[in-house]
Amino acid sequence: MLKYSEMNKEQLRSELEAIKQRYEDFCRRGLKLDMSRGKPCKEQLDLSLELLNMVNSENGYKDSYGTDCRNYGLVDGLPELKALFAEILEVPAENVIVGGNSSLNLMFDTVQQAMFKGLGGQPWSSQGKVKFVCPAPGYDRHFAICEYFGIEMITVQNKPNGPDIDTICKLIEGDPAIKGIWCVPKYENPEGFTYSDEAVKRLAAVKPAAPDFRIFWDNAYAVHDLNDEGDKLLNIYKECSKNGNEDMVIMFTSTSKITFAGAGVAAMAASSANISEIKKRLTIQTIGPDKINQLRHIRMFKNLDDIKAHMKRHAQIIKPKFETVLRIFDQELGDTGIAHWTKPNGGYFISLWVLSGCASRVTELCKQAGLVVTPAGATYPYGKDPDDSNIRIAPTFPDISELAAATELLCICVKYAALEKMI
Amino acid sequence: MLKYSEMNKEQLRSELEAIKQRYEDFCRRGLKLDMSRGKPCKEQLDLSLELLNMVNSENGYKDSYGTDCRNYGLVDGLPELKALFAEILEVPAENVIVGGNSSLNLMFDTVQQAMFKGLGGQPWSSQGKVKFVCPAPGYDRHFAICEYFGIEMITVQNKPNGPDIDTICKLIEGDPAIKGIWCVPKYENPEGFTYSDEAVKRLAAVKPAAPDFRIFWDNAYAVHDLNDEGDKLLNIYKECSKNGNEDMVIMFTSTSKITFAGAGVAAMAASSANISEIKKRLTIQTIGPDKINQLRHIRMFKNLDDIKAHMKRHAQIIKPKFETVLRIFDQELGDTGIAHWTKPNGGYFISLWVLSGCASRVTELCKQAGLVVTPAGATYPYGKDPDDSNIRIAPTFPDISELAAATELLCICVKYAALEKMI
Repeated sequence: MLKYSEMNKEQLRSELEAIKQRYEDFCRRGLKLDMSRGKPCKEQLDLSLELLNMVNSENGYKDSYGTDCRNYGLVDGLPELKALFAEILEVPAENVIVGGNSSLNLMFDTVQQAMFKGLGGQPWSSQGKVKFVCPAPGYDRHFAICEYFGIEMITVQNKPNGPDIDTICKLIEGDPAIKGIWCVPKYENPEGFTYSDEAVKRLAAVKPAAPDFRIFWDNAYAVHDLNDEGDKLLNIYKECSKNGNEDMVIMFTSTSKITFAGAGVAAMAASSANISEIKKRLTIQTIGPDKINQLRHIRMFKNLDDIKAHMKRHAQIIKPKFETVLRIFDQELGDTGIAHWTKPNGGYFISLWVLSGCASRVTELCKQAGLVVTPAGATYPYGKDPDDSNIRIAPTFPDISELAAATELLCICVKYAALEKMI
Repeated sequence: MLKYSEMNKEQLRSELEAIKQRYEDFCRRGLKLDMSRGKPCKEQLDLSLELLNMVNSENGYKDSYGTDCRNYGLVDGLPELKALFAEILEVPAENVIVGGNSSLNLMFDTVQQAMFKGLGGQPWSSQGKVKFVCPAPGYDRHFAICEYFGIEMITVQNKPNGPDIDTICKLIEGDPAIKGIWCVPKYENPEGFTYSDEAVKRLAAVKPAAPDFRIFWDNAYAVHDLNDEGDKLLNIYKECSKNGNEDMVIMFTSTSKITFAGAGVAAMAASSANISEIKKRLTIQTIGPDKINQLRHIRMFKNLDDIKAHMKRHAQIIKPKFETVLRIFDQELGDTGIAHWTKPNGGYFISLWVLSGCASRVTELCKQAGLVVTPAGATYPYGKDPDDSNIRIAPTFPDISELAAATELLCICVKYAALEKMI
């Protein structure tokens, strides 16, 4: 068929009529579909069902060192779990802190400490305006943290295959008010790309105008490959250290999308100087994390290979879901020339780009027909997509048949909005 | 025997010789004893061993509403657990937030929010100096939070049977820089007293000079009775509401000393206005608490009666420990007139008062003989006991024989220090 751009008014009108027909058919079906959030599905959660049996009244509550994990203590987590996260994040175990169930909580608390106490230096908030560089599209909850603390966000539009490192480095080196950057370096949310070795090296070598600048390295999808050959991410901590920048990066990850989204364990890693500053706060904030849940995870996964094997089982469940979305995108939108999208090698999202100025209309049409997608703009600071064209697709939670219906409906809405605009 | 005050120099000297003898005998035994922290003992933790079996691959991961507790969501906790804590704290369930494993963490985060964002009003930190009233002796970790945030602490010495409400109210009503007060209203740490109805009523009726003043009501020992007839604590939230002060109090509690010290669940309760302010932060800070551990607790305890029955089993284990300490105090110190102590009806501590100016010397002598007690001064803001005479005793963790030895040694050190001073 013709690209929409090659159709004449009459052809566009008849195409719109056909699309309206299909749209109304969907509306009549009164569907309730949700593609809005990156949540694991039941089958994925079932992969870790054994986690619930790892600590019980028979097999006991002590770790290998004989620590009674039921009682108080060990504010930075169980040594064996620190070692496991050290493998994932490729840092020494003494540079790891294992916390509760939420890496977002670790990030929020770290930004808060930097703002009001500082991480060795003066509090950011005592130095006037505080800004963050925000590669976008990105993770809405990162941006929400900045907004909550009144941190000004500078949007840097991603390139198709990675962040715009030139612009990013220029900003960081040029403005002492820039204290941080949010990065999801592997299978970026929602773009799906992984930072290239060159991107990591250049970021690690940046000479920030602010001596207390920090890279918030949210490696949420460190082991979340869809294919046997996963993307390789260079170790930014090693690269920073080579440049004498080891205090510049703070890494985060969790098992939220390895075991249980709500009942996993989260960890962070940083230089000894950063870790000791963070522990100064942590020892006042809590007597210690839930070590029993940490013990469950140690017993479930002896090492990184166990986790990798586990993640292949996740991939078997969610890869067909990604393929379903991509297949229907090809069928419905492939020839139209009004949209393009990412084909990620891992992570949790597909990033869909529709005709400029149409994203809000598309999500509105979806909503009216019973499909919830991530609100247009959510992937940008302040919820403002300058182009109103990016939509984040989360394929993992719905089952395949729902997903197929939702994706078809989404495509219809993409065409609907485009045709409205073109006519 | 004679009171020390009635002895002449010669009698004091010979008493000191005898005490030195006993002290050196203890030193030779090379003991390693610890009475320093309020930790449950193994037998207490074993009472909740079944908690580990409450959620497993057989009995499932859904609450009564069908929520899959493994996945994301419910930032303020499972409705059924909110209802259980509502029973404990005597407030409506919608006024409860259930968090992770640490009530200290809830308190720290709440003070932090009040300092830098405010709880509806302006941030405390934007209004100049911030002060807290700190009834003392009190909980060292409360004072540590104030110190961390640079909040000036005003020490108000407790009366023998409760806080000095006159002085406390005068301060709160007289100084707009006073933004908060720390209270452990039931079985106070370490004094063991429970706030009288009159004390609660007067605190609830106070007219603070600061409109954004808050009472931090740490009801850590709400159900922790040693005897069948536990102390009764008046509901301060109801009393505050009667005075139109419902926004003035924020309540905290946890199951740390009901189930597992390190793997329980913590909760807070406050007015709808406070809860909605706190949720504004919470929804940015985390996607939700560990609902699986919350589910374990719901299944373990259907209602408050289940918890009360469970706490009687705790009392059977720890009451003999309290009695051991008190018996030895009577035997060793009863006639000397150089010390007095509390006989609590619940909670986790005995508060020992030694001769003015002797507490540091006592703890130093204990340490040299292999007994760790809470550092002198720890129960006061900035670690400064103006009288250097209070020592917090935590009898729950050691077994009875260790405890007996530790207590005898402690008494010897109390006498030793007193005699040194009197001669």
